[in-house]
Amino acid sequence: MSTAALLVIGNEILSGKVRDTNSAFLAVELRKLGVELERILTIPDEIDLIARETKAMSENYDYVFTSGGIGPTHDDMTMDGIALAFERELETNQSMIDRMARYSDKPLNDAMKKMAIIPAGAEILDVGGLWFPVVVVENVHIFPGIPELFEKKFHSIADRFSGVPFVLRKIFVRESESDIADTLNSLLREYPELMLGSYPKINEEHYRVMLTLESRDEAYVERATGQLVKNLPDDAIYKIES
Amino acid sequence: MSTAALLVIGNEILSGKVRDTNSAFLAVELRKLGVELERILTIPDEIDLIARETKAMSENYDYVFTSGGIGPTHDDMTMDGIALAFERELETNQSMIDRMARYSDKPLNDAMKKMAIIPAGAEILDVGGLWFPVVVVENVHIFPGIPELFEKKFHSIADRFSGVPFVLRKIFVRESESDIADTLNSLLREYPELMLGSYPKINEEHYRVMLTLESRDEAYVERATGQLVKNLPDDAIYKIES
Repeated sequence: MSTAALLVIGNEILSGKVRDTNSAFLAVELRKLGVELERILTIPDEIDLIARETKAMSENYDYVFTSGGIGPTHDDMTMDGIALAFERELETNQSMIDRMARYSDKPLNDAMKKMAIIPAGAEILDVGGLWFPVVVVENVHIFPGIPELFEKKFHSIADRFSGVPFVLRKIFVRESESDIADTLNSLLREYPELMLGSYPKINEEHYRVMLTLESRDEAYVERATGQLVKNLPDDAIYKIES
Repeated sequence: MSTAALLVIGNEILSGKVRDTNSAFLAVELRKLGVELERILTIPDEIDLIARETKAMSENYDYVFTSGGIGPTHDDMTMDGIALAFERELETNQSMIDRMARYSDKPLNDAMKKMAIIPAGAEILDVGGLWFPVVVVENVHIFPGIPELFEKKFHSIADRFSGVPFVLRKIFVRESESDIADTLNSLLREYPELMLGSYPKINEEHYRVMLTLESRDEAYVERATGQLVKNLPDDAIYKIES
């Protein structure tokens, strides 16, 4: 089983100026790959904090992703924080300077060159069509906060992250959550390995709860789904999705 | 200065089945009140983890909010985790049973009664029109994950959370971030207390960067904004918002 954690670095998210969409994107993409995202943490742009949280995530999860804080301005602290986390020097990476120079139509200024200062010994993964590569330090994958770039870069290196995909069935039911709670508990006694979720919705016209049944074993999910359908009242099910 | 942290409890967010909107909502609302949201953490529905993270947040921030995990089903662990965090017993709260009974048109079943089991000594805040109150343990405010309920409940008790509001100006500029980085750095030397954010956007027709200037001192923001406008090239500014 592969696990993952995401560190979102950005005062702009915490202060409500910019809405984070990278978390939701990554949750969906990692799930497709069968990698379990176990922690999403948003913190301010502070070097010590970035270092501490990156280090803890790196030790506890297989893959770590960071979002944000790698631009050319004063509030971009991510590279500093990650260098500190792994006690590495920061150094100008000549291959990144070369990439920048190829893509730029004017001489590089100091602010642009700042973006090529990365932790020593980092791995550099090229992304087609973008001058800025994905920088990887140990198991930490450093992504930009801008959603369009985050998504493009993730897709371009997604084949590095592998797990065993989950099989998911969704059952939308018309009963209230408290009326089916007993039925769910007895299903779990019979299928203790089932990952069973129950999510009430309000303001939905046709159902009151979305149930999710998951496992990496398709036959197991199928049997559990069949059992649950049998145990629910006849007209309780609005629809089933797989 | 008042600080806050949000703990989002939910496998459904981490696995990409449900998109978290409560974080973004709370970030905006707390900012309006002048409360600084400093940490947003999403974790699975696991009692020990909920306990540990709640305890740490409670010690480090003035206000703590939790989202999710308070329904009637097997995967709702938040009350258990928070009771463990503060070493309190769980007990059935009779006033919550009474509220439920008033709102329900049928006898209460065990699943409904489960929702009235809360940490001993918790404070109960009534929310007009909803049978389920906001439960508060020490400085931890326990909210449901369902966005409509989260928002309604927050609005109904928002006057408990006070801070000194920020004054914000946004300047949308046509230059690239690396071309204005020096200008921003020199502004910060002159206005070291300014909270200055720089957020590049791609796919925007009229500007390339949104700058945010903030302080709790309105005159200070005004002066800094005036200085920045003077220092930027004449045609660099697309618009200014306050």
